[in-house]
Amino acid sequence: MTDQSSNQMWGGRFAAGPDAIMEAINASIGFDQRMAAQDIAGSRAHAAMLAATGVITDSDAQAIREGLLTVLSEIQNGEFQFSTALEDIHMNVEARLKEVIGEPAGRLHTGRSRNDQVATDFKLWVRDQLDAAESGLLALIRALLAQAEAGADWVMPGFTHLQTAQPVTWGHHMMAYVEMFGRDLSRVRDARARMNESPLGAAALAGTSFPIDRQMTAEALGFDRPAANSLDAVSDRDFALEFLSSASICAVHLSRFAEELVIWSSAQFRFVTLSDRFSTGSSIMPQKKNPDAAELIRAKVGRIYGANTALMMVMKGLPLAYSKDMQEDKEQVFDAADNWMLALAAMEGMVKDMTANRESLAAAAGSGFSTATDLADWLVRVLGLPFRDAHHVTGSLVAMAESKGCDLPDLTLEDMQSVHADITDDVYSVLTVQNSVNSRQSYGGTAPDQVRAQVKRWKALV
Amino acid sequence: MTDQSSNQMWGGRFAAGPDAIMEAINASIGFDQRMAAQDIAGSRAHAAMLAATGVITDSDAQAIREGLLTVLSEIQNGEFQFSTALEDIHMNVEARLKEVIGEPAGRLHTGRSRNDQVATDFKLWVRDQLDAAESGLLALIRALLAQAEAGADWVMPGFTHLQTAQPVTWGHHMMAYVEMFGRDLSRVRDARARMNESPLGAAALAGTSFPIDRQMTAEALGFDRPAANSLDAVSDRDFALEFLSSASICAVHLSRFAEELVIWSSAQFRFVTLSDRFSTGSSIMPQKKNPDAAELIRAKVGRIYGANTALMMVMKGLPLAYSKDMQEDKEQVFDAADNWMLALAAMEGMVKDMTANRESLAAAAGSGFSTATDLADWLVRVLGLPFRDAHHVTGSLVAMAESKGCDLPDLTLEDMQSVHADITDDVYSVLTVQNSVNSRQSYGGTAPDQVRAQVKRWKALV
Amino acid sequence: MTDQSSNQMWGGRFAAGPDAIMEAINASIGFDQRMAAQDIAGSRAHAAMLAATGVITDSDAQAIREGLLTVLSEIQNGEFQFSTALEDIHMNVEARLKEVIGEPAGRLHTGRSRNDQVATDFKLWVRDQLDAAESGLLALIRALLAQAEAGADWVMPGFTHLQTAQPVTWGHHMMAYVEMFGRDLSRVRDARARMNESPLGAAALAGTSFPIDRQMTAEALGFDRPAANSLDAVSDRDFALEFLSSASICAVHLSRFAEELVIWSSAQFRFVTLSDRFSTGSSIMPQKKNPDAAELIRAKVGRIYGANTALMMVMKGLPLAYSKDMQEDKEQVFDAADNWMLALAAMEGMVKDMTANRESLAAAAGSGFSTATDLADWLVRVLGLPFRDAHHVTGSLVAMAESKGCDLPDLTLEDMQSVHADITDDVYSVLTVQNSVNSRQSYGGTAPDQVRAQVKRWKALV
Amino acid sequence: MTDQSSNQMWGGRFAAGPDAIMEAINASIGFDQRMAAQDIAGSRAHAAMLAATGVITDSDAQAIREGLLTVLSEIQNGEFQFSTALEDIHMNVEARLKEVIGEPAGRLHTGRSRNDQVATDFKLWVRDQLDAAESGLLALIRALLAQAEAGADWVMPGFTHLQTAQPVTWGHHMMAYVEMFGRDLSRVRDARARMNESPLGAAALAGTSFPIDRQMTAEALGFDRPAANSLDAVSDRDFALEFLSSASICAVHLSRFAEELVIWSSAQFRFVTLSDRFSTGSSIMPQKKNPDAAELIRAKVGRIYGANTALMMVMKGLPLAYSKDMQEDKEQVFDAADNWMLALAAMEGMVKDMTANRESLAAAAGSGFSTATDLADWLVRVLGLPFRDAHHVTGSLVAMAESKGCDLPDLTLEDMQSVHADITDDVYSVLTVQNSVNSRQSYGGTAPDQVRAQVKRWKALV
Repeated sequence: MTDQSSNQMWGGRFAAGPDAIMEAINASIGFDQRMAAQDIAGSRAHAAMLAATGVITDSDAQAIREGLLTVLSEIQNGEFQFSTALEDIHMNVEARLKEVIGEPAGRLHTGRSRNDQVATDFKLWVRDQLDAAESGLLALIRALLAQAEAGADWVMPGFTHLQTAQPVTWGHHMMAYVEMFGRDLSRVRDARARMNESPLGAAALAGTSFPIDRQMTAEALGFDRPAANSLDAVSDRDFALEFLSSASICAVHLSRFAEELVIWSSAQFRFVTLSDRFSTGSSIMPQKKNPDAAELIRAKVGRIYGANTALMMVMKGLPLAYSKDMQEDKEQVFDAADNWMLALAAMEGMVKDMTANRESLAAAAGSGFSTATDLADWLVRVLGLPFRDAHHVTGSLVAMAESKGCDLPDLTLEDMQSVHADITDDVYSVLTVQNSVNSRQSYGGTAPDQVRAQVKRWKALV
Repeated sequence: MTDQSSNQMWGGRFAAGPDAIMEAINASIGFDQRMAAQDIAGSRAHAAMLAATGVITDSDAQAIREGLLTVLSEIQNGEFQFSTALEDIHMNVEARLKEVIGEPAGRLHTGRSRNDQVATDFKLWVRDQLDAAESGLLALIRALLAQAEAGADWVMPGFTHLQTAQPVTWGHHMMAYVEMFGRDLSRVRDARARMNESPLGAAALAGTSFPIDRQMTAEALGFDRPAANSLDAVSDRDFALEFLSSASICAVHLSRFAEELVIWSSAQFRFVTLSDRFSTGSSIMPQKKNPDAAELIRAKVGRIYGANTALMMVMKGLPLAYSKDMQEDKEQVFDAADNWMLALAAMEGMVKDMTANRESLAAAAGSGFSTATDLADWLVRVLGLPFRDAHHVTGSLVAMAESKGCDLPDLTLEDMQSVHADITDDVYSVLTVQNSVNSRQSYGGTAPDQVRAQVKRWKALV
Repeated sequence: MTDQSSNQMWGGRFAAGPDAIMEAINASIGFDQRMAAQDIAGSRAHAAMLAATGVITDSDAQAIREGLLTVLSEIQNGEFQFSTALEDIHMNVEARLKEVIGEPAGRLHTGRSRNDQVATDFKLWVRDQLDAAESGLLALIRALLAQAEAGADWVMPGFTHLQTAQPVTWGHHMMAYVEMFGRDLSRVRDARARMNESPLGAAALAGTSFPIDRQMTAEALGFDRPAANSLDAVSDRDFALEFLSSASICAVHLSRFAEELVIWSSAQFRFVTLSDRFSTGSSIMPQKKNPDAAELIRAKVGRIYGANTALMMVMKGLPLAYSKDMQEDKEQVFDAADNWMLALAAMEGMVKDMTANRESLAAAAGSGFSTATDLADWLVRVLGLPFRDAHHVTGSLVAMAESKGCDLPDLTLEDMQSVHADITDDVYSVLTVQNSVNSRQSYGGTAPDQVRAQVKRWKALV
Repeated sequence: MTDQSSNQMWGGRFAAGPDAIMEAINASIGFDQRMAAQDIAGSRAHAAMLAATGVITDSDAQAIREGLLTVLSEIQNGEFQFSTALEDIHMNVEARLKEVIGEPAGRLHTGRSRNDQVATDFKLWVRDQLDAAESGLLALIRALLAQAEAGADWVMPGFTHLQTAQPVTWGHHMMAYVEMFGRDLSRVRDARARMNESPLGAAALAGTSFPIDRQMTAEALGFDRPAANSLDAVSDRDFALEFLSSASICAVHLSRFAEELVIWSSAQFRFVTLSDRFSTGSSIMPQKKNPDAAELIRAKVGRIYGANTALMMVMKGLPLAYSKDMQEDKEQVFDAADNWMLALAAMEGMVKDMTANRESLAAAAGSGFSTATDLADWLVRVLGLPFRDAHHVTGSLVAMAESKGCDLPDLTLEDMQSVHADITDDVYSVLTVQNSVNSRQSYGGTAPDQVRAQVKRWKALV
């Protein structure tokens, strides 16, 4: 709290001098150990290929591949001692392999380098996360479809500027988010397809003179093909940037929905009730249900886009091929991935558990002259008025209703005709909220039939 | 410069009071007039559809469609008087249409609203820019292919950490950027396919009760299909965010290449000579050639990603459907698009014009024991040493050469054998730069044959 | 809309080939002409100093200084022909000066270069904007003080998580923003003091051999002192980054207030009525008042922080001294400054014009057991319960009230005593909203007296 | 690596269902335990004040204050069991206090809430970091001053556009960074002064009815005063944003210097030799010294500004008072602070250890006609030519030297006079690099005397 304590902290943190500082800034094992499974999968594929191409013997390859499984099992069981002196996951695994199998371990690193190795590991890790994002998005979409199907004809206000504009249906509103998360799904799939090329065998940057078979390792690791330029293969972090971009856009969608849930949960709106599981109470105000999960989801876009910003800035202006700056890639992606998956799961849970308050929604849907557009459209459709003239007539009628303190359907036919003589009582058929939404039969409109058609279409897709 | 002048400025800027402030913050005509062609194309398609579905008469539609061409021609000829009082491009065009054709103009806005209209206009504009980006990327890739083909076997140093690592070829380095810009191309095409759904007919947010045919307007405007949810159609700005994300990743690539060109142009490197057209001189130092275009391209990633950040932040937490915040979308995208296209064109021009200094490149390629890895690989391949042992032997030989002040090929066989007795004079075959690059025959490696194969593959693609 | 048109556009944009591209990317006169007044002020100070130190003659200085006034007047009257071929404002002004006064114009650029000249111009421009921001913040704070003073005792709900927590006063809520904008003011003043050092005379980067007097030009231009290192003086853009950082934090405050105004304007809240001047209506729904200005202000944080991001990224990793990348600084700052000043003015206007709906506020303040904390505090203060126990008792009483469908003050004393026997009817004195807020007398609390004290303190400051 | 494994991971991560998800997203104890010391200091001050104002008894306060020391000691000794079920550091500490001292623990939370408590803790933590940043900056500045003093007259090229422009001195270049880090220091101090107001006693948001003395707790915790508005006090995260902004600007400076060190360490420049401690070697290429620390420092600006972006985005548009979104503030600041301090320490270490290669610097300083400006200035000063004419003459002479393959001092007087007849052999006195730098005597110029004067000025300051 004082200069003294901060200086102590400062001093304490780096008391061991330059060497401690260098180790602190340089070592990556503190975080890249999360890629242990990917590292070992890559090495096992590499060893099998080296044997198949005659670079190492079958028995060496066998020893390496089995030894690596032993190491993996030690890591998974929490028995592995990670060493900061060995800097990163690659050296930690290889050093332990040597202890386990001896001399053949020294042959594993033939025809590759840490540069292509780390690119391979990280791509495999990111690819797993793209798959996890796909799973999470599908689950969320299914939860939204269930809400949409149940409430295809529940009316609620459609807002622009947070002002009541026209009535819509609950199902229609839910399906808007299905479209958004559906685009996220498509973006995730495109990103996965684009990044699915193997860096392994690019070696330090120039390729290698060993007769390696990059197609073989690519296949073994589920890549579609080897990356076509070895310099690019070790310099490229597009897959991480595209992962973060896709996550960021999805997080915007999550933030918009979360904002709506926070507003809808307020005492003033009461449109939804969130479940206790995704709210927190107050020991003193038991009626109070804070939408904590929604708020935290709303915030995640900051964290994820912050990671995007960080990596963009790191990569800006880096000459080819590998620069140590690129070691800053992983923590950003790890944190963004964890939080993206968490936000998707929390949103799915909230959507499954939440209850729409149909009465509040319906009451709000009918207020604020929300069917004024229906009246204007009737004037165009039935009386043949140009749209701009119909707008003018409607404006006068709304003003009349407002001054009388009533709603549009409460105006008498005489009232109506005093503004435009040709109005007939057929007009009342379009002034109810339910008729309003039923009439919006244009493709993608809010009519319950349209909503159900979209639910059906999506159910066939996910 | 003083309080007084700044207060005057302050006062002057908003002297007309609240109304002037509101006009300044609210009107968009100052920038959205760039979408005039798109707005008119959308309205013409809408009018044709309204007639085809019987909502308006054929003659009204005819008058509208012809009148809009008149308005477009006025705008293109610079004869159009834009009015800030009319706020935006949509109202400016419609108001002028009314002057030109009279009453039928009032029927155009049937079954749509400004919300779907602006989404349609903006999507068409962004789609044009994705097409322009595709053109620009293709042109740049072709320029790089020409450089790569010419210099497939010119040697140069391959760097890691900006330290000489191994020799590579000029063509190989150029092809690394072809891969990067190739991924950008793929990203642009995916973005275009994903965004190509028509918002038109979503109306304000709920769809419409008029019997419109959204499929018809979608087709007329080159969209693949109508957007499937009207709320989403007017709330969605994913297409703009994905445009900016794709542009940002491409701009990172441009910044990396630009950085290399700046460094390569320095007196210390002299790897390339940029043309006069893309440099600026100094009236006092005629030998000085500043790589201004490269520096400006390097900077563009800031501007483009700044626009991305701006729109991400604008969209964060916005409730559905339309909010006025979204009016901030266009200027960001306009500026980013202009600068992306400009940077692509400038880079293409620089690449076409630049000259690789083959002698400097070759001299640098051979320095710094750059074939040490080749020596180590020879020890593995020929003598069967484990890779880690081969590294150790090589290290000793490099240390010996360094202490003698010579390069690796200058060591005698006795020198070599003093470190490892089994070395034969076959080893000298791998110690030249040219043999080094020739040996890197792994797929995607730096060997001239590999480079030429990749050039050929790409030429068939672009 | 088609490949053809985009290609035409592409082609058209750069049809004139490389030279047109270079001019487009390189010239800055399109935007840096906004610094004309600053450029001329700097040159006039420089000329006077050159004469005072004997570098040029008094008559040359006189001619230069008068000629520059002529040029300035031409620019201000819109009679000046800016030339892109002359690249920037500095060369445009000097070239015109030469036409106006002839040979002495060639002596103006002695002992300086464009590098220190542009840094000086830009600093003067930014300093003006800091002054404008100060004016804008002061005006906004005064508008908030007026609202706070009028409503020092109007009760309203205090929210956490957008859930009613405790009653507060309107004045207290307004004063929270006074504190925020007050910190912005302090930040602006610090930024101004820190940046107020003159780069003029740093020349290209090394200083000059002419016997110039940098102190004299610094004083003439209102700088506190000359910048102490010539390399830094031409490489530094901290003043622009700090301007953008300060603007960004202020824009966060504006966005928070804007968000509240949007929510408070909804039909569900009805806490405030915005004036017509800062809202937009709808021709069809005259009752609808869209809070457009609030929404646009909310969005400005994106634009301003986008500019911050852009310049941060441009400056990242730039070697000393001047690089052309830095030319990207101005448009970002210009746009951010314009939008910051506009947002401040619009917010000031809205605050002045808005009307708090006292009845809605009061009704909302009393709902939701908002005085539960007062009850708990009474139990601690009067009965001596530990706070955690008092919480528990209160929770039981709220649950009882909820199950009876009444509010806390509606519970009978027997009800109360059934939960805790020692409760007396003194407890009812703390259960009203007005007593609740009156009791919050801790420094900075919501009690009207506290609010009025803070209003008084601030009035003395601004 | 496969769909299966990612689904398992997905499933595994949240297998325990909604409750596990909510705990994962909601609990903060995983990171906010870093504020344990601050939390306990705040509670101890609060307890002492509660006793002094008669809210609790002296003996209770005594028990609380001693009990808290016990808890602190348990935490510092690693004996404390943090519980996720207790959510955060505040509840963890209070729960343990209850175990240690029993009933009085329940009286601690009187007159405060978690909202003001967390704001207080976090402010104290950030303030410590500002102090640590001050220490780090001072140490770095001192290291730079030592370099500057040693090399006040060592010549090196001054670059613009990474092209040789004019000779400067090593000391001058070092001092440019002293100015930059000096501004950072000033920014840190301003931020500390601005944020040093105590939130404690703001309670949930409205203040409290207990007769607390906020001035007393403010003083006890080293704050200058209590924050003046309780709503603001719990909603404000300006101190975190300003911390991140200041860190970001400093990180830009670090990135610029790091970039120079990377370039200067290249084989092509060889301007500096970094120590082994801050480089990494290669087992195979012992001569290779990778500037890893410099590269990692260069990258830190991404990470730090990413954190800034994250928190800006989180805070955008948040209504008052506390929202759960704000829980995302700490991890960003923690990570940015750790990396800022680490980068400062690493840069200090590198600067202390690095060796300027005086011969390389001097050789580069003299190449590229670097004294052309001196020649032009001589023509102005001695012959009285207007600057623009002098430029023209110099251009001709440089062109002549270039065509003769010699440098400017190698031209004969006849050569010189063939371009301008009045040139005398006095001109040669300005054409040497050493004379060039010696002549730049303008304030802040590169002349060794000027550099030494600035070193002296700074030594008195830090």
